Amino acid sequence: MVFRVAVAGASGYAGGEVLRILLAHPEIEIGALTGNSNVGQELGGLQPHLLPLAGRVLEPTSAEVLAGHDVVFLALPHGQSAAVAQQLGDAVLIVDCGADFRLHSAADWEKFYGSPHAGTWPYGLPELPGARAALEGSKRIAVPGCFPTGVSLALFPAYAAGLAEPEAVIVAASGTSGAGKALKPHLLGSEVMGSVSPYGVGGVHRHTPEMSQNLSAVAGEKVTVSFTPTLVPMPRGILATCSAKAKPGVTGDQVRAAYEKAFADEPFVHLLPEGRWPSTAAVTGSNAVQLQVAYDESANRVIAISAIDNLTKGTAGGAVQSMNVALGLPEELGLSTSGVAP
Amino acid sequence: MVFRVAVAGASGYAGGEVLRILLAHPEIEIGALTGNSNVGQELGGLQPHLLPLAGRVLEPTSAEVLAGHDVVFLALPHGQSAAVAQQLGDAVLIVDCGADFRLHSAADWEKFYGSPHAGTWPYGLPELPGARAALEGSKRIAVPGCFPTGVSLALFPAYAAGLAEPEAVIVAASGTSGAGKALKPHLLGSEVMGSVSPYGVGGVHRHTPEMSQNLSAVAGEKVTVSFTPTLVPMPRGILATCSAKAKPGVTGDQVRAAYEKAFADEPFVHLLPEGRWPSTAAVTGSNAVQLQVAYDESANRVIAISAIDNLTKGTAGGAVQSMNVALGLPEELGLSTSGVAP
Amino acid sequence: MVFRVAVAGASGYAGGEVLRILLAHPEIEIGALTGNSNVGQELGGLQPHLLPLAGRVLEPTSAEVLAGHDVVFLALPHGQSAAVAQQLGDAVLIVDCGADFRLHSAADWEKFYGSPHAGTWPYGLPELPGARAALEGSKRIAVPGCFPTGVSLALFPAYAAGLAEPEAVIVAASGTSGAGKALKPHLLGSEVMGSVSPYGVGGVHRHTPEMSQNLSAVAGEKVTVSFTPTLVPMPRGILATCSAKAKPGVTGDQVRAAYEKAFADEPFVHLLPEGRWPSTAAVTGSNAVQLQVAYDESANRVIAISAIDNLTKGTAGGAVQSMNVALGLPEELGLSTSGVAP
Amino acid sequence: MVFRVAVAGASGYAGGEVLRILLAHPEIEIGALTGNSNVGQELGGLQPHLLPLAGRVLEPTSAEVLAGHDVVFLALPHGQSAAVAQQLGDAVLIVDCGADFRLHSAADWEKFYGSPHAGTWPYGLPELPGARAALEGSKRIAVPGCFPTGVSLALFPAYAAGLAEPEAVIVAASGTSGAGKALKPHLLGSEVMGSVSPYGVGGVHRHTPEMSQNLSAVAGEKVTVSFTPTLVPMPRGILATCSAKAKPGVTGDQVRAAYEKAFADEPFVHLLPEGRWPSTAAVTGSNAVQLQVAYDESANRVIAISAIDNLTKGTAGGAVQSMNVALGLPEELGLSTSGVAP
Repeated sequence: MVFRVAVAGASGYAGGEVLRILLAHPEIEIGALTGNSNVGQELGGLQPHLLPLAGRVLEPTSAEVLAGHDVVFLALPHGQSAAVAQQLGDAVLIVDCGADFRLHSAADWEKFYGSPHAGTWPYGLPELPGARAALEGSKRIAVPGCFPTGVSLALFPAYAAGLAEPEAVIVAASGTSGAGKALKPHLLGSEVMGSVSPYGVGGVHRHTPEMSQNLSAVAGEKVTVSFTPTLVPMPRGILATCSAKAKPGVTGDQVRAAYEKAFADEPFVHLLPEGRWPSTAAVTGSNAVQLQVAYDESANRVIAISAIDNLTKGTAGGAVQSMNVALGLPEELGLSTSGVAP
Repeated sequence: MVFRVAVAGASGYAGGEVLRILLAHPEIEIGALTGNSNVGQELGGLQPHLLPLAGRVLEPTSAEVLAGHDVVFLALPHGQSAAVAQQLGDAVLIVDCGADFRLHSAADWEKFYGSPHAGTWPYGLPELPGARAALEGSKRIAVPGCFPTGVSLALFPAYAAGLAEPEAVIVAASGTSGAGKALKPHLLGSEVMGSVSPYGVGGVHRHTPEMSQNLSAVAGEKVTVSFTPTLVPMPRGILATCSAKAKPGVTGDQVRAAYEKAFADEPFVHLLPEGRWPSTAAVTGSNAVQLQVAYDESANRVIAISAIDNLTKGTAGGAVQSMNVALGLPEELGLSTSGVAP
Repeated sequence: MVFRVAVAGASGYAGGEVLRILLAHPEIEIGALTGNSNVGQELGGLQPHLLPLAGRVLEPTSAEVLAGHDVVFLALPHGQSAAVAQQLGDAVLIVDCGADFRLHSAADWEKFYGSPHAGTWPYGLPELPGARAALEGSKRIAVPGCFPTGVSLALFPAYAAGLAEPEAVIVAASGTSGAGKALKPHLLGSEVMGSVSPYGVGGVHRHTPEMSQNLSAVAGEKVTVSFTPTLVPMPRGILATCSAKAKPGVTGDQVRAAYEKAFADEPFVHLLPEGRWPSTAAVTGSNAVQLQVAYDESANRVIAISAIDNLTKGTAGGAVQSMNVALGLPEELGLSTSGVAP
Repeated sequence: MVFRVAVAGASGYAGGEVLRILLAHPEIEIGALTGNSNVGQELGGLQPHLLPLAGRVLEPTSAEVLAGHDVVFLALPHGQSAAVAQQLGDAVLIVDCGADFRLHSAADWEKFYGSPHAGTWPYGLPELPGARAALEGSKRIAVPGCFPTGVSLALFPAYAAGLAEPEAVIVAASGTSGAGKALKPHLLGSEVMGSVSPYGVGGVHRHTPEMSQNLSAVAGEKVTVSFTPTLVPMPRGILATCSAKAKPGVTGDQVRAAYEKAFADEPFVHLLPEGRWPSTAAVTGSNAVQLQVAYDESANRVIAISAIDNLTKGTAGGAVQSMNVALGLPEELGLSTSGVAP
């Protein structure tokens, strides 16, 4: 059976990556592509890398255009998904790449996003305990943020096994596509090449409560998160360096065992052999996660580091993976675990 | 039917890309992987982006190991392919990613490579006039060099239509993977980032006679090539800026028409609409070629510019495309035309 | 004696580089800094690399603000310099980093810039035959374009010595700062990293007539220029690959001798020893030019390649060098020939 | 007075940067340049960016060659400085860019470097409490490691003011020149571009005890350090993201005040205005440090982030700054605080 899919927000980086992945998916037919300011333009000029869709023309993002598809991917600015979802009805599978339906806490949502909370949808990170079951058959999916994907996968095994104190410290490096196609001076090539810089420092980044939500649920206690994102000179990729103090008596062997157990059956998460460390290049363009963990005895901390492609596993690949689960398709269908490297 | 494939030289950039592409090919089963100094090592430590093959162990490059496959890809240093080919016999399809069997002229071979000429095999650039027919059913394929791929595609339509004088001037920018994994000081990241530099200037680059051979065959007269390669700070991609004086009376419309005709039915070559220009990012990791042509009236030159991924269409993708032709498979099987961008 | 200098357009890349160089100039005191949309802002937020000027506030670009300085650098959009110059009077040295006063031909100006021609000022490329004398004591300087700087230095010795046919073919790679701080989608970091692309192809780039003007003056005959600029993933630097057919009977020794003679006494131009080639990294942040030349016998072409920093020797360094000449200061004062590498 | 300076290890990145800075120093005359495997080669082929020294020839690294200078910079592999220093005698100022004399604890030295401890010299980070006084008139200087420079400057004010718990968590991004010119596969341009990866994870990096030593001295109690370095795709620069839990009752205002006090009179450290964050590009090629600090209330952590150029303030610039202090010269002499940006 072939599912007919529409993509709203097809001219941005998230929408483009959804399309790149769907083009390789054997059970998908690509239907309507919608935009906003660029309605009427050919995709070839906006996403020149999507050769098979070069002649497609962007339509308006409206319920009329999006109707009649089996699946609709929303790659829209925050706050616009709820209205579209309501108009599309309950029968269509809606995969929201935005933030609108990720958080359980209305208070957190309002504090970090400044608008009324729209609700909570099943969370599209199948590797998290309980997440896969919630996605099966669901007609609504909230795709995780890119940083929360990398961070949650890196740390949840430590919390699930009760090995870490509930104060996580995270520094994550992101490629520039994480900031989207917005025309901002600090995102110009001249500014980002040769430069690393932090942003959203001090607990203000919007992905912070999402990480805390994921880790707290697994830990069974409130996990605070100190999160510092940095922008690095590459288009794609997130390397998340995550650590937490070890609970008393924890050993390195326990840590290793917890991670091996957590990912033993996960097709996309590759816990590296000891002595090797993840690199973002190795997962570029793929849905794979590379992960390593260490126990630093002198500092008494568990250090877990993950590498993902922010646009693939961090957004569009995770979205298609979750779609596969929701539709009852094989979870790996259409998703590559080979990175484009070097 | 599934073909069993061995790859000799699996730890280098060319061999790695062959494997990345074959992993997505529905009619291929990956057999022996061979190396040289790294025999016995796991591929996971050498090609960390090829997650599905991480546990595979490199075997010696010998006739014993390579025997028993339907297809053998050779990604070996120049001069080593002939001996291997002879031992494997005539029944196996051998796809040589090296230079050994590309040149017709023994004199050119000896001048540029400094060793005896081993012979000439059908040339793996199906888009060239006559090439596809020579590949069909062949048991031997000489994969073109990366620069000759981009340059020949950019210029042959002008010569095929008799529009250009037989003196081509080419400046091509290449990503660093074109230089291979060799440990040379000028290839260190610290040296290449922030830097563009030429090499092999003045007619001494080994790809020069190959370009001249291709263009001369199409032109029906000897085409001299002034070729300057430059190294640019990116891992992959070739942008070839090619020009030649227009023959008397040539018009811009004639030039455009010649290119439209040449590529009308080619699945991998995308002649861009007028006003848009190729970029290497758009074809990264894909077998697509982006191409544009202009006629500069004041300088009276035809300027044709192509973008390819040097490892994909420029090496491994072109190799698999030619293998498909030789095996009678659909030419596009297993090959993507969507680049990994941004 | 200390000269008091104002910089109009201090928030852009050219203005910032003028300031960076002037900060190291022992005979200069930095006076007014002017902007446009960012008047009233501190320079620290706009040019964070200029620590000594972080607290300076941008003033409006007006005759009142710019008056009372010995030297005024104009780093303004094309077409705005003439009006400012007229208001400042004849006593002040005006160094125009824009294009307004570079071209002799009003027809060329109007064709390429689309506005009335404002006139011609002494040309700020002291290495060109005759240029130094015209700059001495001048109160007006037209700073060359960045591409014409690299290209003219690479090719004028061949034309001065009568060695090259009057049809030059040039392909130049430029870092992204050459395109300025404008917020355009194709200049985003996500787009430029990993990508090389051409622009202004086919004789339409505005620097073309300037190159032709410089080379024709030296050659004593009209030199046509086929010029293709490409954008490469680095912030700074231009590598200009320039070639022309050799006149009959020319030898490689003659070519070498012509270049050695042309640059024997030039403090900023470094003709490399044979066998070494320029790289843009080697001249980053410096006023040096690295240059090499070869004669390709099989293609019968002279190939000259230069590397400059587009912002330094290509704009602000060349401007300060010319200012030194005009003011009667030592030409090298305040200018470095050490690049910031790696 | 002019001091005559020799540089041992002039072909590496550290040695090259020492030379680049000394070329701009008004009280220095550059004497002998020594190398190892490249003795007899011209510097122009090894450090092509140092145009004024292009014709200089490398001599052997021996006491004979290094004798007769006022100052000798050692940029040698670890473990080689002690023997050279002993032979040169007490009258010459020796500035060791290596690690040999940085650590007080012989046990730490032996654990992390695996050889006998050679001793401890005055530490070349003048901004640290007490360091400047120890450097004045000294004939021996141990230049800090690049990471300890960035990290110690970022965190010492918090510890000096008693605001932070003695468990620091540090994740630092470094440009590739930090790894030197060694020919290692993971340092190839093809591997580093587009990639971020960690190394030396889990308390094993050699700079860890040096950071702990610096912070503990200031804190008056043992400060443990969890340090994770990452390699990012740029040639130069370190961004150090450092945090520690705040002591009970600490407020954001106290934190800000402590940092303002610590750096009020420091010429090279620029505590940014609130709301702006450091970037490595802004300090490229300069001896400046950009620094910002925040108090994250929800995680109760002090987060301090510094940007330096690893080769300049992190090595050669810090070395020259300390040399200035030792020689009684103005501390800023010959050192720029303007970065080469964009």
